[in-house]
Amino acid sequence: MIAAELYRRTAGSIIVAAAALVALAAAAQPSQLEVNKRIATEFYDAAINRKDFAAASQYLGSDYKQHNPTAADGVEGLRGFIDFLRARFPNQRGEIKRVIAEGDLVVLHVHSTRGDGTPGRAIVDIFRIENGKVVEHWDVIQDIPAQPANTNGMF
Amino acid sequence: MIAAELYRRTAGSIIVAAAALVALAAAAQPSQLEVNKRIATEFYDAAINRKDFAAASQYLGSDYKQHNPTAADGVEGLRGFIDFLRARFPNQRGEIKRVIAEGDLVVLHVHSTRGDGTPGRAIVDIFRIENGKVVEHWDVIQDIPAQPANTNGMF
Repeated sequence: MIAAELYRRTAGSIIVAAAALVALAAAAQPSQLEVNKRIATEFYDAAINRKDFAAASQYLGSDYKQHNPTAADGVEGLRGFIDFLRARFPNQRGEIKRVIAEGDLVVLHVHSTRGDGTPGRAIVDIFRIENGKVVEHWDVIQDIPAQPANTNGMF
Repeated sequence: MIAAELYRRTAGSIIVAAAALVALAAAAQPSQLEVNKRIATEFYDAAINRKDFAAASQYLGSDYKQHNPTAADGVEGLRGFIDFLRARFPNQRGEIKRVIAEGDLVVLHVHSTRGDGTPGRAIVDIFRIENGKVVEHWDVIQDIPAQPANTNGMF
Protein backbone atom coordinates (compact mmCIF):
# COMPACT_ATOMS: atom_id res chain seq x y z
CA MET A 1 0.00 0.00 0.00
CA ILE A 2 2.82 2.41 0.81
CA ALA A 3 4.46 1.64 -2.55
CA ALA A 4 1.20 2.07 -4.44
CA GLU A 5 0.50 5.38 -2.76
CA LEU A 6 4.02 6.63 -3.51
CA TYR A 7 3.61 5.55 -7.14
CA ARG A 8 0.33 7.42 -7.46
CA ARG A 9 1.67 10.60 -5.87
CA THR A 10 4.91 10.73 -7.81
CA ALA A 11 3.44 9.94 -11.22
CA GLY A 12 1.61 13.26 -11.50
CA SER A 13 4.46 15.37 -10.21
CA ILE A 14 7.01 13.70 -12.50
CA ILE A 15 4.85 14.43 -15.55
CA VAL A 16 4.48 18.07 -14.49
CA ALA A 17 8.23 18.34 -13.90
CA ALA A 18 9.01 16.74 -17.27
CA ALA A 19 6.65 19.15 -19.07
CA ALA A 20 8.22 22.10 -17.25
CA LEU A 21 11.72 20.97 -18.28
CA VAL A 22 10.65 20.69 -21.93
CA ALA A 23 9.11 24.18 -21.78
CA LEU A 24 12.23 25.62 -20.12
CA ALA A 25 14.50 24.01 -22.72
CA ALA A 26 12.38 25.42 -25.54
CA ALA A 27 12.42 28.91 -24.01
CA ALA A 28 16.12 28.90 -23.16
CA GLN A 29 17.48 28.62 -26.69
CA PRO A 30 16.33 30.20 -29.95
CA SER A 31 14.37 27.83 -32.14
CA GLN A 32 15.73 26.81 -35.53
CA LEU A 33 13.23 29.25 -37.10
CA GLU A 34 14.65 32.11 -35.03
CA VAL A 35 18.19 31.14 -36.03
CA ASN A 36 17.16 31.01 -39.71
CA LYS A 37 15.49 34.43 -39.42
CA ARG A 38 18.64 35.93 -37.95
CA ILE A 39 20.75 34.45 -40.77
CA ALA A 40 18.39 35.76 -43.47
CA THR A 41 18.04 39.27 -42.03
CA GLU A 42 21.77 39.68 -41.36
CA PHE A 43 22.57 38.40 -44.86
CA TYR A 44 20.02 40.83 -46.33
CA ASP A 45 21.50 43.75 -44.44
CA ALA A 46 25.06 42.91 -45.51
CA ALA A 47 24.19 42.29 -49.17
CA ILE A 48 21.52 44.89 -49.89
CA ASN A 49 21.90 47.67 -47.34
CA ARG A 50 25.66 47.66 -46.73
CA LYS A 51 26.37 46.28 -50.22
CA ASP A 52 29.31 44.43 -48.70
CA PHE A 53 29.94 41.21 -50.63
CA ALA A 54 32.68 40.01 -48.25
CA ALA A 55 30.32 40.33 -45.26
CA ALA A 56 27.40 38.78 -47.15
CA SER A 57 29.49 35.85 -48.36
CA GLN A 58 30.00 34.71 -44.74
CA TYR A 59 26.35 33.65 -44.81
CA LEU A 60 26.45 31.95 -48.22
CA GLY A 61 26.60 28.26 -48.94
CA SER A 62 29.01 26.91 -51.55
CA ASP A 63 26.24 27.48 -54.08
CA TYR A 64 23.55 30.17 -54.26
CA LYS A 65 20.64 29.42 -56.56
CA GLN A 66 19.30 32.73 -57.84
CA HIS A 67 15.69 33.13 -59.05
CA ASN A 68 15.72 36.94 -59.38
CA PRO A 69 15.47 37.17 -63.18
CA THR A 70 17.73 40.23 -63.42
CA ALA A 71 20.69 38.66 -61.55
CA ALA A 72 23.14 36.04 -62.74
CA ASP A 73 23.14 32.69 -60.94
CA GLY A 74 25.45 31.62 -58.13
CA VAL A 75 27.82 33.24 -55.67
CA GLU A 76 29.61 35.20 -58.40
CA GLY A 77 26.23 36.39 -59.68
CA LEU A 78 25.53 37.88 -56.25
CA ARG A 79 28.92 39.61 -56.26
CA GLY A 80 28.04 41.19 -59.62
CA PHE A 81 24.59 42.19 -58.37
CA ILE A 82 26.04 43.92 -55.28
CA ASP A 83 28.63 45.72 -57.46
CA PHE A 84 25.75 46.88 -59.70
CA LEU A 85 23.76 48.14 -56.70
CA ARG A 86 26.71 50.04 -55.26
CA ALA A 87 27.48 51.69 -58.60
CA ARG A 88 23.94 52.39 -59.79
CA PHE A 89 21.81 52.74 -56.62
CA PRO A 90 24.20 53.55 -53.74
CA ASN A 91 21.33 54.92 -51.63
CA GLN A 92 19.04 51.91 -52.06
CA ARG A 93 17.90 50.60 -48.71
CA GLY A 94 15.42 47.93 -47.69
CA GLU A 95 13.43 48.25 -44.48
CA ILE A 96 12.24 44.81 -43.35
CA LYS A 97 8.57 45.14 -42.38
CA ARG A 98 7.84 41.51 -41.43
CA VAL A 99 9.62 38.17 -41.30
CA ILE A 100 7.76 34.87 -41.75
CA ALA A 101 9.58 31.55 -41.45
CA GLU A 102 8.63 27.91 -41.80
CA GLY A 103 10.83 24.87 -42.31
CA ASP A 104 13.96 25.91 -44.22
CA LEU A 105 12.39 29.06 -45.74
CA VAL A 106 12.45 32.67 -44.50
CA VAL A 107 10.22 35.34 -46.08
CA LEU A 108 11.11 39.04 -45.79
CA HIS A 109 8.47 41.65 -46.66
CA VAL A 110 10.49 44.75 -47.48
CA HIS A 111 9.97 48.43 -48.29
CA SER A 112 12.82 49.34 -50.63
CA THR A 113 13.68 52.97 -51.33
CA ARG A 114 16.39 54.68 -53.37
CA GLY A 115 16.39 58.13 -51.80
CA ASP A 116 14.94 59.62 -54.99
CA GLY A 117 11.67 60.94 -53.57
CA THR A 118 9.50 58.21 -55.09
CA PRO A 119 7.35 55.90 -52.90
CA GLY A 120 9.83 53.09 -53.59
CA ARG A 121 9.05 49.44 -54.10
CA ALA A 122 7.35 46.62 -52.23
CA ILE A 123 9.48 43.48 -52.26
CA VAL A 124 9.10 39.96 -50.94
CA ASP A 125 12.37 38.03 -50.66
CA ILE A 126 12.35 34.31 -49.89
CA PHE A 127 15.57 32.67 -48.72
CA ARG A 128 16.23 28.96 -48.25
CA ILE A 129 18.62 28.12 -45.42
CA GLU A 130 20.52 24.83 -45.42
CA ASN A 131 22.97 23.91 -42.65
CA GLY A 132 23.06 27.51 -41.45
CA LYS A 133 23.83 28.96 -44.88
CA VAL A 134 21.76 30.85 -47.45
CA VAL A 135 21.59 28.61 -50.54
CA GLU A 136 18.63 29.85 -52.62
CA HIS A 137 16.74 33.10 -53.25
CA TRP A 138 13.47 34.13 -54.87
CA ASP A 139 11.92 37.59 -54.99
CA VAL A 140 8.98 39.55 -56.31
CA ILE A 141 9.24 43.33 -56.78
CA GLN A 142 6.55 45.95 -57.42
CA ASP A 143 6.65 49.73 -57.70
CA ILE A 144 4.45 51.37 -55.06
CA PRO A 145 1.90 53.52 -56.93
CA ALA A 146 1.60 57.19 -56.06
CA GLN A 147 -2.22 56.99 -56.21
CA PRO A 148 -3.35 53.79 -54.45
CA ALA A 149 -7.00 52.64 -54.44
CA ASN A 150 -7.02 52.34 -50.63
CA THR A 151 -5.29 54.13 -47.76
CA ASN A 152 -3.80 51.05 -46.05
CA GLY A 153 -0.37 51.23 -47.68
CA MET A 154 1.37 48.19 -49.14
CA PHE A 155 2.69 47.05 -45.71
CA MET B 1 13.86 0.06 -0.30
CA ILE B 2 10.99 -1.42 -2.24
CA ALA B 3 9.35 1.98 -2.45
CA ALA B 4 12.58 3.69 -3.51
CA GLU B 5 13.23 1.08 -6.19
CA LEU B 6 9.67 1.42 -7.52
CA TYR B 7 10.07 5.20 -7.60
CA ARG B 8 13.32 4.95 -9.55
CA ARG B 9 11.96 2.49 -12.10
CA THR B 10 8.65 4.23 -12.68
CA ALA B 11 10.10 7.75 -13.02
CA GLY B 12 11.84 7.02 -16.32
CA SER B 13 8.96 5.13 -17.88
CA ILE B 14 6.40 7.79 -16.91
CA ILE B 15 8.50 10.50 -18.59
CA VAL B 16 8.81 8.37 -21.74
CA ALA B 17 5.06 7.68 -21.74
CA ALA B 18 4.23 11.37 -21.25
CA ALA B 19 6.51 12.36 -24.14
CA ALA B 20 4.93 9.71 -26.36
CA LEU B 21 1.43 10.98 -25.55
CA VAL B 22 2.44 14.55 -26.43
CA ALA B 23 3.90 13.36 -29.75
CA LEU B 24 0.79 11.29 -30.54
CA ALA B 25 -1.51 14.21 -29.78
CA ALA B 26 0.54 16.49 -32.05
CA ALA B 27 0.48 13.97 -34.92
CA ALA B 28 -3.22 13.11 -34.64
CA GLN B 29 -4.66 16.51 -35.52
CA PRO B 30 -3.58 19.16 -38.04
CA SER B 31 -1.64 21.99 -36.46
CA GLN B 32 -3.04 25.52 -36.43
CA LEU B 33 -0.58 26.35 -39.23
CA GLU B 34 -1.99 23.56 -41.39
CA VAL B 35 -5.54 24.79 -40.72
CA ASN B 36 -4.54 28.36 -41.63
CA LYS B 37 -2.87 27.13 -44.83
CA ARG B 38 -6.02 25.29 -45.85
CA ILE B 39 -8.15 28.41 -45.20
CA ALA B 40 -5.81 30.66 -47.22
CA THR B 41 -5.46 28.31 -50.19
CA GLU B 42 -9.20 27.52 -50.37
CA PHE B 43 -10.01 31.23 -50.11
CA TYR B 44 -7.48 31.99 -52.85
CA ASP B 45 -8.95 29.35 -55.14
CA ALA B 46 -12.52 30.60 -54.61
CA ALA B 47 -11.68 34.29 -55.04
CA ILE B 48 -9.01 34.28 -57.75
CA ASN B 49 -9.39 31.05 -59.71
CA ARG B 50 -13.15 30.45 -59.51
CA LYS B 51 -13.87 34.19 -59.16
CA ASP B 52 -16.79 33.22 -56.91
CA PHE B 53 -17.43 35.95 -54.35
CA ALA B 54 -20.15 33.98 -52.54
CA ALA B 55 -17.77 31.04 -52.03
CA ALA B 56 -14.86 33.30 -51.08
CA SER B 57 -16.96 35.27 -48.58
CA GLN B 58 -17.44 32.11 -46.48
CA TYR B 59 -13.77 32.48 -45.51
CA LEU B 60 -13.89 36.23 -44.82
CA GLY B 61 -14.03 37.93 -41.47
CA SER B 62 -16.44 40.82 -40.90
CA ASP B 63 -13.69 43.10 -42.17
CA TYR B 64 -11.01 42.53 -44.81
CA LYS B 65 -8.09 44.96 -44.75
CA GLN B 66 -6.79 45.29 -48.28
CA HIS B 67 -3.20 46.36 -49.02
CA ASN B 68 -3.23 45.61 -52.77
CA PRO B 69 -2.99 49.20 -54.05
CA THR B 70 -5.26 48.56 -57.05
CA ALA B 71 -8.22 47.20 -55.01
CA ALA B 72 -10.69 49.06 -52.81
CA ASP B 73 -10.65 48.26 -49.09
CA GLY B 74 -12.93 45.85 -47.27
CA VAL B 75 -15.30 43.01 -48.13
CA GLU B 76 -17.11 45.10 -50.76
CA GLY B 77 -13.76 46.01 -52.27
CA LEU B 78 -13.03 42.31 -52.75
CA ARG B 79 -16.43 41.82 -54.39
CA GLY B 80 -15.60 44.60 -56.85
CA PHE B 81 -12.13 43.16 -57.50
CA ILE B 82 -13.56 39.70 -58.28
CA ASP B 83 -16.17 41.29 -60.60
CA PHE B 84 -13.33 43.13 -62.35
CA LEU B 85 -11.31 39.90 -62.74
CA ARG B 86 -14.26 37.97 -64.15
CA ALA B 87 -15.06 40.72 -66.68
CA ARG B 88 -11.54 41.71 -67.70
CA PHE B 89 -9.39 38.56 -67.16
CA PRO B 90 -11.76 35.56 -67.12
CA ASN B 91 -8.90 33.15 -67.86
CA GLN B 92 -6.59 34.43 -65.12
CA ARG B 93 -5.41 31.57 -62.92
CA GLY B 94 -2.91 31.35 -60.09
CA GLU B 95 -0.90 28.19 -59.51
CA ILE B 96 0.29 28.06 -55.92
CA LYS B 97 3.97 27.04 -55.98
CA ARG B 98 4.72 27.13 -52.24
CA VAL B 99 2.97 27.94 -48.97
CA ILE B 100 4.85 29.29 -45.94
CA ALA B 101 3.02 29.92 -42.66
CA GLU B 102 4.00 31.27 -39.26
CA GLY B 103 1.79 32.59 -36.47
CA ASP B 104 -1.35 34.12 -38.00
CA LEU B 105 0.21 34.72 -41.44
CA VAL B 106 0.15 32.52 -44.56
CA VAL B 107 2.36 33.31 -47.57
CA LEU B 108 1.46 32.00 -51.04
CA HIS B 109 4.08 32.11 -53.81
CA VAL B 110 2.04 32.04 -57.00
CA HIS B 111 2.54 31.80 -60.76
CA SER B 112 -0.33 33.78 -62.28
CA THR B 113 -1.20 33.44 -65.96
CA ARG B 114 -3.95 34.90 -68.15
CA GLY B 115 -3.94 32.44 -71.02
CA ASP B 116 -2.53 35.09 -73.35
CA GLY B 117 0.74 33.37 -74.25
CA THR B 118 2.92 35.62 -72.06
CA PRO B 119 5.10 34.15 -69.25
CA GLY B 120 2.62 35.61 -66.74
CA ARG B 121 3.41 37.11 -63.35
CA ALA B 122 5.14 36.10 -60.14
CA ILE B 123 3.02 36.99 -57.11
CA VAL B 124 3.43 36.71 -53.37
CA ASP B 125 0.17 36.95 -51.42
CA ILE B 126 0.20 37.24 -47.63
CA PHE B 127 -3.00 36.56 -45.71
CA ARG B 128 -3.65 37.13 -42.01
CA ILE B 129 -6.01 34.64 -40.42
CA GLU B 130 -7.90 35.52 -37.24
CA ASN B 131 -10.34 33.11 -35.57
CA GLY B 132 -10.43 30.96 -38.70
CA LYS B 133 -11.24 33.87 -41.04
CA VAL B 134 -9.18 35.81 -43.58
CA VAL B 135 -9.02 39.39 -42.29
CA GLU B 136 -6.07 41.07 -44.07
CA HIS B 137 -4.20 40.79 -47.38
CA TRP B 138 -0.95 42.07 -48.83
CA ASP B 139 0.60 41.23 -52.19
CA VAL B 140 3.53 41.96 -54.48
CA ILE B 141 3.24 41.36 -58.23
CA GLN B 142 5.92 41.27 -60.94
CA ASP B 143 5.80 40.48 -64.65
CA ILE B 144 8.01 37.51 -65.50
CA PRO B 145 10.53 38.72 -68.10
CA ALA B 146 10.81 36.86 -71.38
CA GLN B 147 14.64 37.06 -71.25
CA PRO B 148 15.80 36.27 -67.68
CA ALA B 149 19.43 36.59 -66.62
CA ASN B 150 19.48 33.00 -65.29
CA THR B 151 17.76 29.74 -66.20
CA ASN B 152 16.29 28.96 -62.74
CA GLY B 153 12.85 30.48 -63.35
CA MET B 154 11.11 32.72 -60.81
CA PHE B 155 9.83 29.73 -58.79
